[in-house]
Amino acid sequence: MTAIFQRVGLIGKHGDPSVKERVLGLGAFLQQRGHQVLLEEQTAQLLNRHRPATAPLPIIARDSDLVIVVGGDGTLLHAARALAAHNVPLVGVNLGRLGFLTDVSPEHMLEGLEQILAGAYEEEQRFLLQARIGTDSDPGKPQLALNDVVLHKWNIARMIEFETYVDDRFVGSQRSDGLIVSTPTGSTAYALSGGGPLMTPELNAMVLVPICPHTLSNRPIVIGGDSRVEIRICPAHHDHVRVTCDGQTNMPVGRQQVLHIRKDEHRIRLIHPSGHDHYNILRAKLGWGGRPK
Amino acid sequence: MTAIFQRVGLIGKHGDPSVKERVLGLGAFLQQRGHQVLLEEQTAQLLNRHRPATAPLPIIARDSDLVIVVGGDGTLLHAARALAAHNVPLVGVNLGRLGFLTDVSPEHMLEGLEQILAGAYEEEQRFLLQARIGTDSDPGKPQLALNDVVLHKWNIARMIEFETYVDDRFVGSQRSDGLIVSTPTGSTAYALSGGGPLMTPELNAMVLVPICPHTLSNRPIVIGGDSRVEIRICPAHHDHVRVTCDGQTNMPVGRQQVLHIRKDEHRIRLIHPSGHDHYNILRAKLGWGGRPK
Amino acid sequence: MTAIFQRVGLIGKHGDPSVKERVLGLGAFLQQRGHQVLLEEQTAQLLNRHRPATAPLPIIARDSDLVIVVGGDGTLLHAARALAAHNVPLVGVNLGRLGFLTDVSPEHMLEGLEQILAGAYEEEQRFLLQARIGTDSDPGKPQLALNDVVLHKWNIARMIEFETYVDDRFVGSQRSDGLIVSTPTGSTAYALSGGGPLMTPELNAMVLVPICPHTLSNRPIVIGGDSRVEIRICPAHHDHVRVTCDGQTNMPVGRQQVLHIRKDEHRIRLIHPSGHDHYNILRAKLGWGGRPK
Amino acid sequence: MTAIFQRVGLIGKHGDPSVKERVLGLGAFLQQRGHQVLLEEQTAQLLNRHRPATAPLPIIARDSDLVIVVGGDGTLLHAARALAAHNVPLVGVNLGRLGFLTDVSPEHMLEGLEQILAGAYEEEQRFLLQARIGTDSDPGKPQLALNDVVLHKWNIARMIEFETYVDDRFVGSQRSDGLIVSTPTGSTAYALSGGGPLMTPELNAMVLVPICPHTLSNRPIVIGGDSRVEIRICPAHHDHVRVTCDGQTNMPVGRQQVLHIRKDEHRIRLIHPSGHDHYNILRAKLGWGGRPK
Repeated sequence: MTAIFQRVGLIGKHGDPSVKERVLGLGAFLQQRGHQVLLEEQTAQLLNRHRPATAPLPIIARDSDLVIVVGGDGTLLHAARALAAHNVPLVGVNLGRLGFLTDVSPEHMLEGLEQILAGAYEEEQRFLLQARIGTDSDPGKPQLALNDVVLHKWNIARMIEFETYVDDRFVGSQRSDGLIVSTPTGSTAYALSGGGPLMTPELNAMVLVPICPHTLSNRPIVIGGDSRVEIRICPAHHDHVRVTCDGQTNMPVGRQQVLHIRKDEHRIRLIHPSGHDHYNILRAKLGWGGRPK
Repeated sequence: MTAIFQRVGLIGKHGDPSVKERVLGLGAFLQQRGHQVLLEEQTAQLLNRHRPATAPLPIIARDSDLVIVVGGDGTLLHAARALAAHNVPLVGVNLGRLGFLTDVSPEHMLEGLEQILAGAYEEEQRFLLQARIGTDSDPGKPQLALNDVVLHKWNIARMIEFETYVDDRFVGSQRSDGLIVSTPTGSTAYALSGGGPLMTPELNAMVLVPICPHTLSNRPIVIGGDSRVEIRICPAHHDHVRVTCDGQTNMPVGRQQVLHIRKDEHRIRLIHPSGHDHYNILRAKLGWGGRPK
Repeated sequence: MTAIFQRVGLIGKHGDPSVKERVLGLGAFLQQRGHQVLLEEQTAQLLNRHRPATAPLPIIARDSDLVIVVGGDGTLLHAARALAAHNVPLVGVNLGRLGFLTDVSPEHMLEGLEQILAGAYEEEQRFLLQARIGTDSDPGKPQLALNDVVLHKWNIARMIEFETYVDDRFVGSQRSDGLIVSTPTGSTAYALSGGGPLMTPELNAMVLVPICPHTLSNRPIVIGGDSRVEIRICPAHHDHVRVTCDGQTNMPVGRQQVLHIRKDEHRIRLIHPSGHDHYNILRAKLGWGGRPK
Repeated sequence: MTAIFQRVGLIGKHGDPSVKERVLGLGAFLQQRGHQVLLEEQTAQLLNRHRPATAPLPIIARDSDLVIVVGGDGTLLHAARALAAHNVPLVGVNLGRLGFLTDVSPEHMLEGLEQILAGAYEEEQRFLLQARIGTDSDPGKPQLALNDVVLHKWNIARMIEFETYVDDRFVGSQRSDGLIVSTPTGSTAYALSGGGPLMTPELNAMVLVPICPHTLSNRPIVIGGDSRVEIRICPAHHDHVRVTCDGQTNMPVGRQQVLHIRKDEHRIRLIHPSGHDHYNILRAKLGWGGRPK
């Protein structure tokens, strides 16, 4: 019988030696089960023996039937953007603390993966945003974000000013420290710190969360997931803003440029061991009350 | 040529004499244009001459091609619940201050209606919630809400405790003053006061907003519009809660009873003069910044 | 040598059998050390042997050199109001979970008390509020609150309306679910749920926190601790409000009556084992980050 | 009879030509009344005729009996810091929109000033903060702030991490976009955008408002006005923070340096026409409800 996931990509948190042992253990476990293991190049640099075949991220994306990411939510966000175009399922193993995305705990890593590899898993699709910074004639290269696209002030002490449009309709102008445009996936991350609501992962919606707005009635607003968001920065402030995807990439906005945000055509396939429950994770991570006895 | 809306129902804010002149003017205007006018019974009691035919609300609902509601958002909420099952379009004329639902202003009442009656209008569908309080054997009679279903403490100074389930999954237990379950339509009302996000009217979603929760991480959560919400009140607190629809109806919850909330099968058809823009109303009502010159 | 605290009052959480063993243990411990123990009457009903002398609360208040309260913050709030006029120091032993006021944990009860009885303690003064509901001719009987005086809606689904004055100056009228007037002590309790700030215990200030205000800019406001607050309820709503002290007492407001709140002349003397640190408690109770290693 | 305020300094918003006419009018008005007018140098550059004697800001500070500032709150903040050490009273004339600090409106400028010059005024003292960035051996030069001292992230997309101490006691470590330390005067400014409470101007307190904190329970905390605040930035983040006073000055924090904030020894003397009422300004600026008819 062939394994469901024959070729398994393995990505560890870059530059974190604590990941080493777990990646090695996982590699051995997978090879023992007869899987072909593709170790991501930079992860491989952390290890100095027992290396499975190593490959750069694009090859992992193209050739894997499943990719296991060992690290925190940040590592998974990075891998997700890189793998988005390839439709390869992803599973996240957290280091230490439970993550919203990396919900296989280190203690239960092997049994959780055994379940998944045996076909007892749940697959969930998460959409990504794409951000483009450009002009009418040069629309700009799309950047992906699984959590959020954030416009924020940069190198300036004072608020920035910008206008927001949704589906070509003017929403309002705003003075604030910036704006978070978040997916449901990102609603537990920076958007939550900024006062945004939680959103269930499967919701087809995004939320616009103003950061420290000057006007108190500038509240978070939830819009449809297929909406197109456009942000026009006040001319005086172009040199003092940046656009960030998942808190990991960083782009300036030129004088004539406009920021466009919309749903990307690709989705992330997130794999969980059977019995996965998003509310369980919310309760654990946010310290919500459990069932009274 | 037949008018699009041949028979027009007319409902005024109950017990508000200031509505009188406007309703009379509207009635005359409509009759002059050849429409058949059905004046709602209680509204008719406010007037003492020039009465068009009067009818109780159920007849208005059954026989009208269009219903005009003169009053505030509260009057429209009341009419909307009463008319929901009849698929009759509704238009709201506000008294004085602009409402989120009653967006035809008194000054532009006749020209706005002229536009609508001439076919230059936009129709928008808004979904309603239905709340049932019952047991497994007696599911209870559904109550409608266009804005929100609210579980709140009653006759007690202290917090109440309850458990929330969404689609049969346990979300969490909570100590708070209550919970607001709001449609996108209601997101500009009580839910906003409680710290909930705005939601665009067409979004297929609802938001659960805890009222003064004991646990700071009990944040508003946006869930899919087709979800089923179930709330189980802690036994000690059944005598101290009420369930309210749109702030207008009021129901106790018995010892063995559970509160169920879900989308109703009917929708409201809301009519606006052409060029209607929800963001315009948000900007005007919430004092958001306009377009800088 | 005479003990510092010769006569020690002992109050347990009413109606909670789990308190029994701890109270008995404490009583034995105190008698063994040569203290005279005054057991509060209702607490005594929980025990059925080894009773020290029992006394009603007013006698405890008058005759004790120290009062030990075994229970949660609620039990201490109740005792504090009863003892306020008598200047007797109070120490709180929590049951199970750490309280903001009851900061001697059950595990360290005897050693903590040994420290205190040996003179190694810190004393902290906390002010109380007094609320009076009355008219010009009949000012009403003052009610005490250590945490907060709350005006809130009662048996009504809709918001109430009222005007607030501080030191005879008009602050604003407000539609909301009510208003919390909190001491620094109460800033970690209901006021926090309502969106109020934390305040350090020694601050001479109170905070007015609107509950779910209709107007988003109705934000919490911190005023001087010697200010006089006056709240005038809109005539239509007198039947639908209550005033609550510490969530434990409950008073209606008559048609001609006005709510007055100000600092009481008495203070609570709260005793902690040496080394007490309020920020430690905040970090533990609110899950704040500790010192990074 | 000698005028109360013989020598009057005159400062206009720098680089704003719209200020010109008002400053000229004021100068003529004051000279006609027999006052000696000291025109601030940079303000003088805006005018090209009818100049009164011009002087640099330090001379204005030293020699004036009263300083009139024409501009917005920003102009007054700047002047206040410059004049703080000289104990000279300040009055603010706003341009266009009412300010929290500049409460003489352009329409009532001359009559408001006439009142003040005739002695019918109210004087209010506002305290300033001083921020020092330094080490044990080099404590750093104090910078003044009338509104707030803000530690914030700078040229970085991610949160910064730092520890807060109050009066040498550890409060907590925090991951966030920064921290606002605000006076009561600043509580209507950036601190309000960040979720802080309002504070009455005369309150002897400051508030620490975390900016978009990662931990939801990191709430604003009000501490005594005489407290000393110390902030220690996590070593990895020193290159990515700045400290800003009143949003107008900007300082880096070196590797070994610590940020110290405390009340400055000087106060600002703010002059208002008689009948000034801070709650009036709050109601007008924040759109609060007025007295119902």
